[in-house]
Amino acid sequence: MADQIPQSHLDLFERPVVVGLVTLMPDGQPQATPVWCSYDGTHVLVNTARGRQKDFNMQRNDRVTVLAIDPENPYRWLEVRGKVAAITEEGAVDHINALSKKYRGNDDYYAANPELRHQETRVIYKIAPLKVNAR
Amino acid sequence: MADQIPQSHLDLFERPVVVGLVTLMPDGQPQATPVWCSYDGTHVLVNTARGRQKDFNMQRNDRVTVLAIDPENPYRWLEVRGKVAAITEEGAVDHINALSKKYRGNDDYYAANPELRHQETRVIYKIAPLKVNAR
Repeated sequence: MADQIPQSHLDLFERPVVVGLVTLMPDGQPQATPVWCSYDGTHVLVNTARGRQKDFNMQRNDRVTVLAIDPENPYRWLEVRGKVAAITEEGAVDHINALSKKYRGNDDYYAANPELRHQETRVIYKIAPLKVNAR
Repeated sequence: MADQIPQSHLDLFERPVVVGLVTLMPDGQPQATPVWCSYDGTHVLVNTARGRQKDFNMQRNDRVTVLAIDPENPYRWLEVRGKVAAITEEGAVDHINALSKKYRGNDDYYAANPELRHQETRVIYKIAPLKVNAR
């Protein structure tokens, strides 16, 4: 059932490309939001805070899809249709800091808003690729 | 039920921004693909060819979502959750030519591949916005 991310498009997860994350609302309507993400060689990892709509959606329905469009060439893209294989708070602050480093060049996600650190709980969603399309 | 596209974000439909179109596969998995689009003041219009996966998906399930991320600032974006209100082949070639003008600066979509004109049937999907989120 698993599918591979082609080598040719791994750069879309290595570069600071903001991707579209699609989750499903309770009524089945797709919700699509821009997110940071990373790829650990097996799963696509996204990171959100407990209580957000996409947190609720992914807890309820494990079907998710990620679309990465190359900002330098929108006709080059990668679609990952997958399932949420794991949800964990373990390492989630380290992960958001790593994403902050990748996307903002600052390895402290909370640097600009220290209060937020104590007001939210970060969560990692690990997405197993089931069907991958790349152009 | 209808929702409005905020004036502040209309430029994302006026500029040649390639957007993510989310449709639903028969098993409920979201399919997300980059597409050209336009906005007529009421509906978001996308244009595809008969027989493509998104054509099948939108004929079967009218729930679709469009995500436009500003290529110049990925933290500025527009999500339109909507329903396919109309599907028509009427005017679809004129529409794809207008999109070609907007996105490629060439008002003949088939200029580079004249044979294709006779090999495919273009279709317009008119998406009625039900819930809009803008940042």
